[in-house]
Amino acid sequence: MTTVLKGNIVSATALGKLEITENGYMVLEDGVITGIHDRLPEAYAHAPLEDYGDCLILQSFADMHFHAPQYAMQGMGFDLPLLEWLEKYAFPTEARYLDIGFAREVYSRLAREMVQNGTTRMCVFSTLHRPATLVLMEELEKAGAVAYVGKVNMDRNSPDFLRETTEGAKTETLRWLDECSRFRNVKPMITPRFTPSCTDELMTFLGKLVQERNLPVQSHLSENRAEMNWVRRLHPDCQQYWETYAKFGLWTDRTLMAHCVWCDERERKAIREAGVTMVHCGASNNNILSGTAPVRQMLDEGIKVVLGNDVGAGDSLQGFDLVADSVRASKTKHVQDGWTTPFLTVAEGWYLGTTAGAEFFGAGKGFAVGDALHAIVLDDSRLLTPRDLTVQERFERSIYRRQNDAIRAVWSEGRKVVG
Amino acid sequence: MTTVLKGNIVSATALGKLEITENGYMVLEDGVITGIHDRLPEAYAHAPLEDYGDCLILQSFADMHFHAPQYAMQGMGFDLPLLEWLEKYAFPTEARYLDIGFAREVYSRLAREMVQNGTTRMCVFSTLHRPATLVLMEELEKAGAVAYVGKVNMDRNSPDFLRETTEGAKTETLRWLDECSRFRNVKPMITPRFTPSCTDELMTFLGKLVQERNLPVQSHLSENRAEMNWVRRLHPDCQQYWETYAKFGLWTDRTLMAHCVWCDERERKAIREAGVTMVHCGASNNNILSGTAPVRQMLDEGIKVVLGNDVGAGDSLQGFDLVADSVRASKTKHVQDGWTTPFLTVAEGWYLGTTAGAEFFGAGKGFAVGDALHAIVLDDSRLLTPRDLTVQERFERSIYRRQNDAIRAVWSEGRKVVG
Repeated sequence: MTTVLKGNIVSATALGKLEITENGYMVLEDGVITGIHDRLPEAYAHAPLEDYGDCLILQSFADMHFHAPQYAMQGMGFDLPLLEWLEKYAFPTEARYLDIGFAREVYSRLAREMVQNGTTRMCVFSTLHRPATLVLMEELEKAGAVAYVGKVNMDRNSPDFLRETTEGAKTETLRWLDECSRFRNVKPMITPRFTPSCTDELMTFLGKLVQERNLPVQSHLSENRAEMNWVRRLHPDCQQYWETYAKFGLWTDRTLMAHCVWCDERERKAIREAGVTMVHCGASNNNILSGTAPVRQMLDEGIKVVLGNDVGAGDSLQGFDLVADSVRASKTKHVQDGWTTPFLTVAEGWYLGTTAGAEFFGAGKGFAVGDALHAIVLDDSRLLTPRDLTVQERFERSIYRRQNDAIRAVWSEGRKVVG
Repeated sequence: MTTVLKGNIVSATALGKLEITENGYMVLEDGVITGIHDRLPEAYAHAPLEDYGDCLILQSFADMHFHAPQYAMQGMGFDLPLLEWLEKYAFPTEARYLDIGFAREVYSRLAREMVQNGTTRMCVFSTLHRPATLVLMEELEKAGAVAYVGKVNMDRNSPDFLRETTEGAKTETLRWLDECSRFRNVKPMITPRFTPSCTDELMTFLGKLVQERNLPVQSHLSENRAEMNWVRRLHPDCQQYWETYAKFGLWTDRTLMAHCVWCDERERKAIREAGVTMVHCGASNNNILSGTAPVRQMLDEGIKVVLGNDVGAGDSLQGFDLVADSVRASKTKHVQDGWTTPFLTVAEGWYLGTTAGAEFFGAGKGFAVGDALHAIVLDDSRLLTPRDLTVQERFERSIYRRQNDAIRAVWSEGRKVVG
């Protein structure tokens, strides 16, 4: 089945590079992009047309790190740093997801909100609860998202009300993996919360699973200095934090590591060489005082960098904020470094929040031929303008200029899921 | 006429201090607060009641620095630093306000948006155009705002299409001041754009006006290092930027100076001793790479600090963002200073964005007895929660957690202007 979309198409094909097709046509066959054209090729003259007029057709967002259960406490507790914030806010909130009804209420809203706001690909932490994790996956699938979701593993160093036994963690993880087979676009991801939360026995088990079943992994790395000191005390055999994942087989080219604020040259080298992806969470790093990640340096070194909103430590689920927050953090870094490190341009931040994350899901760069369509259609016509704006200017403005109800349609995995 | 408001009343009576009256009653006589009570005093048992149920009754915002004309380009040009950004985006946009129709369209929306989102007090830059400035004042008055508005003065160092003659600036300023007498809650404020934009002759004239008529002043100070070097070259007789205002009589206890990012000890002393108010614009300072203002230090030294969104260099007109951005900037500073300078708590940011600004307008601290009511009624009932939250927790969450359509009513100068 052929579909043609008409509008102003903006495709981020490389870091900082935009390919703009004004009043262009995008042709889909069964939801898969076959081409972008300045003029409609004769062959498609009679194909069904989604005419989006003067709207912007943008790539949808890929949000590569957040904690779904913390949606219920979004915006709370920002007077505290990481470890205290976990104890006082995050852990008690997560404990609530033993209650399946509560999980359903929160996750159905979260999933809808994410997709309606244009985030169609995501990597998500659930809680340690297997049933609630399945609810999250159901709701994401229903909303039309493509996602990796992790049942969180944590069998030490957390309060009694939010801790598994090592045996329980193993059994529940295996059972959960079996139950995931029923989902089409939502897949499991092995998720040790972070090194302090998992015994060596559990890490060994998870690493073996990853190796045997070729599963992707997500966790946290070098976010906060108190956390890093703690990890050092827990693993005196490891010189650096990353080794506490690597030694168990959790350090692969399908591994996501959130934050990486404090990674030095040696740790960055380990990331690059293993093909690990670094998830930058600019808003969170500011909110809970983690520091400022060396994103430009990592990009220059060839590390794969993607973005995550990190709700609840982040304060917004919006993809536009995800991008803007990466630019903001890079400007903070720029100033911290005495105006030397180049900040991220808006187009660069956009690439990180769209194409870079999509690549983790196997997609090509920008609106790539052969990929199922993931897109937002943005109607910015209600905004005032000082003069006629170019498509690029309208695109750039949309990142920082929050607009309610401006998303006219969302496409995910080749299907129109909103609009 | 007596009115009673019922709800959860949060009053910021000192920096970082909140007085919370749960399920409380606020009594107004002709719009003026006469008391806040835990229980309704018998005398008011039959007074008209605005029952806001479980809503939060919060102080409205005071936004003390922004450029109204730049609303039309909000969110644009954030890959450029100040001086280039002015040339490429801000000046051409401002030139459009020669067109009264355009001014009406932009300013009517801006004024409504500000008040509907809970900002009832503000200090605003217009453009150099007298007629458009009057349109802005009309629209703010109509929307119910209490404001100081400045016709901008600029007779040098800007493009031909946005520059006055010195004579023209004088004549138009005098005529504009005469025409302002018709407004009730919107008053004029003397506004040299910044030192580089005004000849000595014009500054002398403006300073005399300020002294003779006891008018308030707003301008920019020590925002950006390139700007400061420029000022130094223009005024070799002045050791520091502030002296270029002081020597003309523009440095008074009714003067607002935006930014003050780079004020050293000597300049801060001059600010404190004159009773000048520093307007901190956290988002703007990040967006156009100005640096990070030493807000905590200024507060500790006894300088009056208030907040401004600085649209178009800022990216949001929302009062909640105004407050959150001040906390974000303070956390950036905290990290820059090696985790030494205490960041602003949410309650402290809130105080700066409400009470501190209101004081410039002569108001007392928090919901003070004797003041006309300025308030927002916030209905946060649609948000999910992990447990029962205290009023203080709900208040704190509202700062970072953007909620569309949650403002149920806005009161300004004792009148309900929204809801």
